[in-house]
Amino acid sequence: MTPAAPFLDETHDPSRASLVESADDPATDFPLQNLPLGWGRPVPGGPERMLAAIGSFVLDLAGVRGEGWLGDLPSSVLGAIDGPRLNALMSCGAEARRALRRALVALLDAASPVPIGRLRKHLFAADTAELLLPASVGDYTDFYASVFHAENVGRLFRPDSPLLPNYKFVPIGYHGRASSLVPSGTPIVRPSGQVRPDPAAPPSFRPTERLDYELEVGLFIGPGNRLGDRVAVGQAEEHAFGLCLVNDWSARDIQQWEYQPLGPFLGKNFATTVSPWVVTLEALAPFRAPAVERPAGEPAPLPYLDDGLGGLAGGFDVRLDVYLASSAMREQGLEPARTARSGLANLYWTFSQLIAHHTSNGCNLQPGDLLASGTVSGPDDGERGCLLEATAGGRTPLKLPSGEHRRFLEDGDEVALAGGCERKGFRRIGFGDCRGRVVPAR
Amino acid sequence: MTPAAPFLDETHDPSRASLVESADDPATDFPLQNLPLGWGRPVPGGPERMLAAIGSFVLDLAGVRGEGWLGDLPSSVLGAIDGPRLNALMSCGAEARRALRRALVALLDAASPVPIGRLRKHLFAADTAELLLPASVGDYTDFYASVFHAENVGRLFRPDSPLLPNYKFVPIGYHGRASSLVPSGTPIVRPSGQVRPDPAAPPSFRPTERLDYELEVGLFIGPGNRLGDRVAVGQAEEHAFGLCLVNDWSARDIQQWEYQPLGPFLGKNFATTVSPWVVTLEALAPFRAPAVERPAGEPAPLPYLDDGLGGLAGGFDVRLDVYLASSAMREQGLEPARTARSGLANLYWTFSQLIAHHTSNGCNLQPGDLLASGTVSGPDDGERGCLLEATAGGRTPLKLPSGEHRRFLEDGDEVALAGGCERKGFRRIGFGDCRGRVVPAR
Repeated sequence: MTPAAPFLDETHDPSRASLVESADDPATDFPLQNLPLGWGRPVPGGPERMLAAIGSFVLDLAGVRGEGWLGDLPSSVLGAIDGPRLNALMSCGAEARRALRRALVALLDAASPVPIGRLRKHLFAADTAELLLPASVGDYTDFYASVFHAENVGRLFRPDSPLLPNYKFVPIGYHGRASSLVPSGTPIVRPSGQVRPDPAAPPSFRPTERLDYELEVGLFIGPGNRLGDRVAVGQAEEHAFGLCLVNDWSARDIQQWEYQPLGPFLGKNFATTVSPWVVTLEALAPFRAPAVERPAGEPAPLPYLDDGLGGLAGGFDVRLDVYLASSAMREQGLEPARTARSGLANLYWTFSQLIAHHTSNGCNLQPGDLLASGTVSGPDDGERGCLLEATAGGRTPLKLPSGEHRRFLEDGDEVALAGGCERKGFRRIGFGDCRGRVVPAR
Repeated sequence: MTPAAPFLDETHDPSRASLVESADDPATDFPLQNLPLGWGRPVPGGPERMLAAIGSFVLDLAGVRGEGWLGDLPSSVLGAIDGPRLNALMSCGAEARRALRRALVALLDAASPVPIGRLRKHLFAADTAELLLPASVGDYTDFYASVFHAENVGRLFRPDSPLLPNYKFVPIGYHGRASSLVPSGTPIVRPSGQVRPDPAAPPSFRPTERLDYELEVGLFIGPGNRLGDRVAVGQAEEHAFGLCLVNDWSARDIQQWEYQPLGPFLGKNFATTVSPWVVTLEALAPFRAPAVERPAGEPAPLPYLDDGLGGLAGGFDVRLDVYLASSAMREQGLEPARTARSGLANLYWTFSQLIAHHTSNGCNLQPGDLLASGTVSGPDDGERGCLLEATAGGRTPLKLPSGEHRRFLEDGDEVALAGGCERKGFRRIGFGDCRGRVVPAR
């Protein structure tokens, strides 16, 4: 896939309708042109399956394979449908993923050779399906790729030098916790930890009082690289599979006291919510966008980070929103309140640059590894992707429609991230649900 | 297992000899009283097996199980011998591990009911066996538990305040990279990366000029804890399986430029060498020791880190050595030079405290997870567990027996860590090999 010529084909044609009627609703996240992949139990409590989202349904891929409706696909792809999770498919590479997409589009098209009556056996209501993590994640890396987030947070901690000297040269990242990645809907237990709000008093151990969300986008790795080998920025997309939404829950008081000198640890690793649907690079092809333009005078990326395309490789224009609903709001029947609207094009570094950087020392990425963007904030007030930024460290609380105020998250608060891509001449595609509700400390 | 009464039984009796004669050599790492467990191919290129080390041999556990010689063990333990790796056995808990130990000691004892002639079929020369990583590691966490290391390194970066205010309250740690954990013997490719030795000049991308080793000990997790649950410090050992040696290779120039504000990343994640044998908690039972004594006036551990035993829980007295051999030394037939001698009792925090801290926010540990100590340095000059400390940041090079000097590692240098426990009245036990040789940058 050459980033300069995004892969557009008949699967992106906005005039194509689906024989699944709900996929033709302009408001759906999952038209025929999207077909994100996931993993879960289409029947609650039943066996786990590889799934594709179409309108308000999930399609059981093993089921349609069993009918012979995916007959032309290579046997490696047909076998990968059995899992584990999406990992086996991720390891197959871009050609395999595209072949599967073409087969699914043909099958679900309004002009499908298979009548809806026969297909229905393999379609299950999305709202009752149990969606799990799409991949078994070997390693989870979290970056810090939004310069606006880095500046906003840096200003709170270091008013005179918000941005550290390395920021515009090094795509800053750190390793997160893989075991505590959880699928959308998993309750988030308020973590306890060591905090020291008053530097003159000793620290204490107690439930966090500064629980926060972070609006992020994750990239799942497709084929990996061998230990000791580097991935060039121009080849980085060959190692990318697709994108999801990530809420990197954070306990700011725990993080603040622990993070020097080795970085965030218990302030982050109690839970990270991942959306269950992986939107493939093919679905995203119409929505390519470079990272933020670097103002004149800023350093050019070092050669190993320069894609020669002005940052177009690995960049995507995804609109992102955060919604918050308190217990009181739900009781009063109020809609969730949007607390931020941002976009992935606000990143300073593209995913291709993140992959090239991550492997620049020979570090091996593996199929199913998750690379998250870091909080995606934009330059404006309404574009702050976490409460730490939106409330200026708790100093300017947000007002909710219920009349409540929020400095940080309270028990019962539910946070939902949303993502979508829109461009004239193409069907809108969406990312589905990425939500979690805070439950009291144990 | 109550830490106050370490589990000592007939398996620790130093007078017991083995029918494997090399196990009775006082210099062996692997007497009958040790029996560390590992995973690999007893026959090069052959099938993978769970193994135990005995003298100069490895025992194929599936083989002796097939003979019915482990007949009394619970079926869960017998099944866990098939793997994957040691993870299934690790999940079985301490009782299972002890039962396996008793069975193996009885089988390999000089008074074994099985004659050596019959046993020989399942014993393979250790020096030709291909040893792999003992566990499939879901998450690898690296701590910073030696106060001497923290002070030595801190002094290089912050001469006026070597120890940060949180050190004596918080067991500082961060998530490392699981995919680049490699077994002893794997060549270490010199990593390249972004460095900025001269803050007045722009950074550049090049092979590291400050490649270092770090002398560490790792703990493999046995049974895990559920997400959201905490492990009390008094119960922490129920979640521990055993110890190994870890060399956390580090590129100091890459690390120095990247590490703020989110901690070490590419300066560390290019490779971490793990010794193939896991020395169980039972083998270590005679060698319990608390962490370093806290001088008067130092803060007591917060209650969630206080084992009520003066730090005895999770502490072990393991003597540790680092050996370095250059290409020239090998060509001249010189023995490797010892560059450091230290000991695990130099830690400020015990492994029980590290487990309690790691789970204090509800973070879930899983069987096979690896928790490393961080560089184990002691108070004296010869006890500095990395070159950064031993050469004061490169200012005072070490002299090798070949007449060469070392500020940091050169291509061809081989680093070997060694670990062992000695106490009057007990057989010495050792940890085996943890080595890696630096090969040129690609």
